[in-house]
Amino acid sequence: MTDLQKIYRYIEEHEEEHITKVQEFLRQPSVSAEDLGIRECADLLCSYYKDLGCQEVEIVETNGHPGVWAYYNADNEKTIVNYCMYDTQPVEGEEWSSPPFEANVVEKPSLGKVIIARGAVNSKGGYRMWLNALEAIIAIQGKLPVNIMFTAEGEEELGSPHFPQIIAKYQNRLKEADAVLGCGPSQDQEGKIKMFLGVKGIVYLELECSGKSWGRGPQAFDIHSSTKAIVDSPVWRLINALSTMVSGDGNTILIEGWYDKVASPSLEDIELVDKLVEVFDDRVWKESFKIKRWIDDLEGKDLILKYLYSTTLNIDGIWGGYTGPGTKTVLPHKVICKVDVRVVPNQKPEDVVPLIRAHLDKHGYNDIEIREHDRYGWSKTSVKEPVAQAVLSVYKGYGKKVEVWPHMGGSAPFYLYTQNLNLPVAGGGLGHGGRAHSPDEYLVIQGNEKVAGLVEAEKSYVDILYAYAGWNRGSSISYSSPQKAL
Amino acid sequence: MTDLQKIYRYIEEHEEEHITKVQEFLRQPSVSAEDLGIRECADLLCSYYKDLGCQEVEIVETNGHPGVWAYYNADNEKTIVNYCMYDTQPVEGEEWSSPPFEANVVEKPSLGKVIIARGAVNSKGGYRMWLNALEAIIAIQGKLPVNIMFTAEGEEELGSPHFPQIIAKYQNRLKEADAVLGCGPSQDQEGKIKMFLGVKGIVYLELECSGKSWGRGPQAFDIHSSTKAIVDSPVWRLINALSTMVSGDGNTILIEGWYDKVASPSLEDIELVDKLVEVFDDRVWKESFKIKRWIDDLEGKDLILKYLYSTTLNIDGIWGGYTGPGTKTVLPHKVICKVDVRVVPNQKPEDVVPLIRAHLDKHGYNDIEIREHDRYGWSKTSVKEPVAQAVLSVYKGYGKKVEVWPHMGGSAPFYLYTQNLNLPVAGGGLGHGGRAHSPDEYLVIQGNEKVAGLVEAEKSYVDILYAYAGWNRGSSISYSSPQKAL
Repeated sequence: MTDLQKIYRYIEEHEEEHITKVQEFLRQPSVSAEDLGIRECADLLCSYYKDLGCQEVEIVETNGHPGVWAYYNADNEKTIVNYCMYDTQPVEGEEWSSPPFEANVVEKPSLGKVIIARGAVNSKGGYRMWLNALEAIIAIQGKLPVNIMFTAEGEEELGSPHFPQIIAKYQNRLKEADAVLGCGPSQDQEGKIKMFLGVKGIVYLELECSGKSWGRGPQAFDIHSSTKAIVDSPVWRLINALSTMVSGDGNTILIEGWYDKVASPSLEDIELVDKLVEVFDDRVWKESFKIKRWIDDLEGKDLILKYLYSTTLNIDGIWGGYTGPGTKTVLPHKVICKVDVRVVPNQKPEDVVPLIRAHLDKHGYNDIEIREHDRYGWSKTSVKEPVAQAVLSVYKGYGKKVEVWPHMGGSAPFYLYTQNLNLPVAGGGLGHGGRAHSPDEYLVIQGNEKVAGLVEAEKSYVDILYAYAGWNRGSSISYSSPQKAL
Repeated sequence: MTDLQKIYRYIEEHEEEHITKVQEFLRQPSVSAEDLGIRECADLLCSYYKDLGCQEVEIVETNGHPGVWAYYNADNEKTIVNYCMYDTQPVEGEEWSSPPFEANVVEKPSLGKVIIARGAVNSKGGYRMWLNALEAIIAIQGKLPVNIMFTAEGEEELGSPHFPQIIAKYQNRLKEADAVLGCGPSQDQEGKIKMFLGVKGIVYLELECSGKSWGRGPQAFDIHSSTKAIVDSPVWRLINALSTMVSGDGNTILIEGWYDKVASPSLEDIELVDKLVEVFDDRVWKESFKIKRWIDDLEGKDLILKYLYSTTLNIDGIWGGYTGPGTKTVLPHKVICKVDVRVVPNQKPEDVVPLIRAHLDKHGYNDIEIREHDRYGWSKTSVKEPVAQAVLSVYKGYGKKVEVWPHMGGSAPFYLYTQNLNLPVAGGGLGHGGRAHSPDEYLVIQGNEKVAGLVEAEKSYVDILYAYAGWNRGSSISYSSPQKAL
């Protein structure tokens, strides 16, 4: 039995214990928006790094929620940085079939056993599987095949406002690393593997229209709606203002200068998209998100291009006045909406608020307030980087098809690694979860012929780590996967 | 000492007891929209009618909240109908300086002692003062000077959807009455008396835009907002649809045919408005509603005409997606807004939904759902009616200036009396309260040089009842007020 096989067997033999550890992490709420369980979860994460044998484990205080720094010294030439977000989205107002913080294992039609929990796939569930894989390696080999600098934050779902503080503190050490690598479930529900070589940037903001700022309408509280005959309405004002910002279908942004810096896809991106078209099947997404028709009924390559290269202006939430049951006749004194903007290469996130401000002012809405909550830039890593090639080599070794996306539609603060530290970022691994940011978020535990369960997922993380460790030099254990892919 | 003076003294001597009774009524929550305390409040009201000595007191079951019918037989030729709404607006989401159902007596700058409570002025507080006045008359005189048919409902704030059932049950008896008369606080905070000879009608509805109805956008739940690049947004759709319904300032309704049936003011109305202009001071309204500027900076007669003869389309509330603290990035699957429409003579409330439906369909929004919650018509009574003249005669006797409004901007289900039963409707009395439908709703208890407190208010209700009782024939007690006004 090879050392690798011993690690595999260790994972198999510790399946129940590993599932329990995933559940433990998920049962500790860590809702950053509501400051629910955040510090407790940071402490729990510290205990995990200590259990691994990290020589340095510390809570990193910030002006917001704490981060965590840990360093695992394997006395190796190669060092990776690992990213962790230990926070999750809220669950407020959502209806779950199993309570979001009970992390129950339930049978899901066509997917087998899954854990249902907030954070199951985004991202605590998958992260704990990654730590399980590291523990298995250490249990058999005595140590990891690379040094790891762990950087964890508890504010990713808030737009990582203080992650720069965490990175800044360890900047000189992080710069010495070779790459950023992390493993997690990357299969869709049909088992297809997705790999994203980057992320879009995001700006999250609130727009508020109030009688107080306007000088018209109710100044201090909601008033009897019979006054509408002679009193202006901040709600109508915000609605009219918003409607000037997008086209009739809501999909083209009419703010002057918005698209000026949007870059055309690079040659590498075009090559990747052409390969993607061959394997991409939008039915999985339709099923996952419960979508019948895409914007403009797009298909195939058009759909992929739209997804990748669209900057978007989305209303995440809107509220004002009476929102309870039945009838209450009031003229509201204010209304607020939450907006997220996704920025693509080469847009600058710092341009977003000034552009919206200028648009509102130009249309006479200079009283509408803009509150920027958080912002960060897009990030991209070339598929040619060794860390990306290492991940792909493992998939190739499995004989599995891979969708390689130039970047994803979502956002993560990877610009801090790529733009600020000049480190490539990649990741991957088997496993599947879904419904991120939605009720009944889940992570597959048992697996079936299509998607990997916890055991196979963790094995793939072991493979990926060794593949990268051995990329430029001989690995200390036998690893037979081909060393080049795509 | 005349009998009237004895009644006055009785009220003075029972001030504390009367305040306690007002508090008791207000401490019993009766929020119709939330079905909070409704039946308990109906039972409490029944006990009040029994205490008065009504020969008939009965809960009237409806398809919604129960009504109350009571009959006080004074063996008199003259019979009035009295209207009571025993329900109130909700308090959800409001911040009160004194809890809304504690009905505490607090000192309010410039107004003296007030009771702060939901329903204080709209309308349980004033209604209990009216019952206190009736009790005082009975205590001294043995009986009331008119027969009274009490008709009470617990759904006024819902648009009185089942009040027609209550009226229908007693229709034949109600038709035999001479007028509808009720007393309550009618002074503004400067002490000026307002009398409203009618009401606007109202239609309350919800508009909902959902991915499910549309067939585009998220079909079942809020999804990750990174999908906005390729998924349509029901929120943008509703915003764009709403913006087609009103002018840029939100004040002119652009729905085809909306204004077709709006009547010009009658000659009687014009005479009343011309008199109103002489006494009307909008500063009190500005202070009361916390308004700096009216629509189009209107003043004087223009402001009055706008207030009285405008049909309005108001958004009472809007909500969709994530409305909690911090950041949550979702593309919402639906958004809802509550809308109230005020109809003026000669608009028909039953036309409102078809007009909005036709407008939405014409603009391609046939998937947006309209749910009508409640509707009723406008109502008007001529100032020449004896019941109106009786009220005015009392004010004239006090030497007080009166603002006589052809109708109010608000709504009440008086069309059931005026249009269905052909009965005139009037009311009035001293006293002051404010902040209807808002936090810190209040009713003045102590009074000062400007506004009447509870004792003076109740005395005025006694005066009004006797004025009407004696209008066509000699009153049984000496009543010296002049018998004609305005």
